[in-house]
Amino acid sequence: MLGEFALIDAIVAGLGDRAAGDWITLGPGDDAAVIAATSGLSQVASIDTLLPDVHFPAAAPPQLIGYRSLMVSFSDLAAMGAVPRYCLVSLSMDESQAALGSAWVEALAQGMATAARELGVYVCGGNLTRGPLNIAVSVHGEVEPQRLLLRTGGSPGLSLYVTGPLGAAAACVRTGQMMPVEPAALTPLQAAYYRPLARFDVPSLLISAAGGLDISDGLAQDLEHLCRASGCGAALDSGAIPVALGAQLDDALFGGDDYELLLASDLPLAGAHRIGYLTSELGLRLDGEPLNVRGFDHFGDGESIR
Amino acid sequence: MLGEFALIDAIVAGLGDRAAGDWITLGPGDDAAVIAATSGLSQVASIDTLLPDVHFPAAAPPQLIGYRSLMVSFSDLAAMGAVPRYCLVSLSMDESQAALGSAWVEALAQGMATAARELGVYVCGGNLTRGPLNIAVSVHGEVEPQRLLLRTGGSPGLSLYVTGPLGAAAACVRTGQMMPVEPAALTPLQAAYYRPLARFDVPSLLISAAGGLDISDGLAQDLEHLCRASGCGAALDSGAIPVALGAQLDDALFGGDDYELLLASDLPLAGAHRIGYLTSELGLRLDGEPLNVRGFDHFGDGESIR
Repeated sequence: MLGEFALIDAIVAGLGDRAAGDWITLGPGDDAAVIAATSGLSQVASIDTLLPDVHFPAAAPPQLIGYRSLMVSFSDLAAMGAVPRYCLVSLSMDESQAALGSAWVEALAQGMATAARELGVYVCGGNLTRGPLNIAVSVHGEVEPQRLLLRTGGSPGLSLYVTGPLGAAAACVRTGQMMPVEPAALTPLQAAYYRPLARFDVPSLLISAAGGLDISDGLAQDLEHLCRASGCGAALDSGAIPVALGAQLDDALFGGDDYELLLASDLPLAGAHRIGYLTSELGLRLDGEPLNVRGFDHFGDGESIR
Repeated sequence: MLGEFALIDAIVAGLGDRAAGDWITLGPGDDAAVIAATSGLSQVASIDTLLPDVHFPAAAPPQLIGYRSLMVSFSDLAAMGAVPRYCLVSLSMDESQAALGSAWVEALAQGMATAARELGVYVCGGNLTRGPLNIAVSVHGEVEPQRLLLRTGGSPGLSLYVTGPLGAAAACVRTGQMMPVEPAALTPLQAAYYRPLARFDVPSLLISAAGGLDISDGLAQDLEHLCRASGCGAALDSGAIPVALGAQLDDALFGGDDYELLLASDLPLAGAHRIGYLTSELGLRLDGEPLNVRGFDHFGDGESIR
């Protein structure tokens, strides 16, 4: 069995140029990382945990697990209007991964490095413990305080927009395509699930938006979060919801894992899809009928892989 | 079974005034927390994971688990010379905790809040997932760049100091006192284990120190980390090592979980204990004899609760 320090060396090797650089004054190796903050900006921070057979199939290629873990965690910063800067990863893994020697963790780190490169961020610190597989990622960015996108920013009359097609990741799960044959040759639905892209590429939309969040729990449930935080309801037009190729309306409404942004705005958002509007009447309606939220609750029933 | 959101409510209730305040612009409830950074200071960040029956007994009172989880994680920032500011907690818990209803997580959060109050920090964000019990804590602080305490700062001839007595937490484990009868009435050894104090209270020592780190893996192993990072060796005087009441020299050398600081300095550090000095010859020596490091390796053999 490889020792802790050999495994850490493999992780740092897998991260390559993503362990430090630019605004990372001090990367892995000391008690903590040191990061240069940009004067005048606020820090934005979030933490997520990804678990095998809940957030990814345990037997999936580690490159894909690593990529997905970082990207979905950073999506929370896109949902705040922030610029992503760095993350920390705390990895617990047991014998079933460690028995693969350093190859499994090195590939996991390579997948994280790929996501980090696409986002322009660094994985400047971490921790390794022996235990049931668990990937905790704390993500950090910066934002001009006046540019913050909050879920409290909705109000009746604002239009609702989504930044892209929904439901592909859920359709991947529903159609049983969760185990890629080859990481480099994913089907489109597998790519949606394993290689989502956090939407840091739409700053011009965010400037015009009054409020919003990312869609990780499914459009209906995340819209309910927006409505609850903003004290309003919403009316959706099913025909206007952009359903991804290969997905169904139910995947888009209830599936989750899309990581598109849901925005409320009184200005037209060019390039985004207008799917409805916020109402003073509480509750969600779809084509005029009450919409029951079948959301994802980690402690509820009917949990599925996502 | 309680739902995810009811449990989150219990956690926020347990945190009380520690969920937001002062430099926390936005606490729990949105996609991410927002923190006002101090102009001119660097950000310092670290992440740790604590696992049941590795880092704490699973059946220990949740208040104590919460307190200890936060405090030992923040110790890494004390070891950098930083001022602690905030943390994020990602909690995975399974049926055995969730079956206790909201009481277990609320008490856990109360313990975290107690530590946060002593440190003057906030727990401004988190995540909750169903899975094997796992507490990941990312800790964040600020430091004047010229005040950073690094483990690369050692050099031959510098004296070695520790900030307090060592071995009490290890003696707690060794003497089988791991299960407190009553959280409010801990024995001294139990208090050392469950209620360590991260050493943010010795800034005057850190100004004079050339390098250092916190002692979490045992004096011998952490000294080896300092020596490896600084490219030197060390000579210790066993009679000068401050052994805690109820502990033995072996607890102090190899036990871990002390969270005192180990400092290298060419200036006298009043109030700290001088235990030896750094040498140009590599390797550790105790009273002139080679000292074999029996360290703690998460993936090695002989792992015990710590």
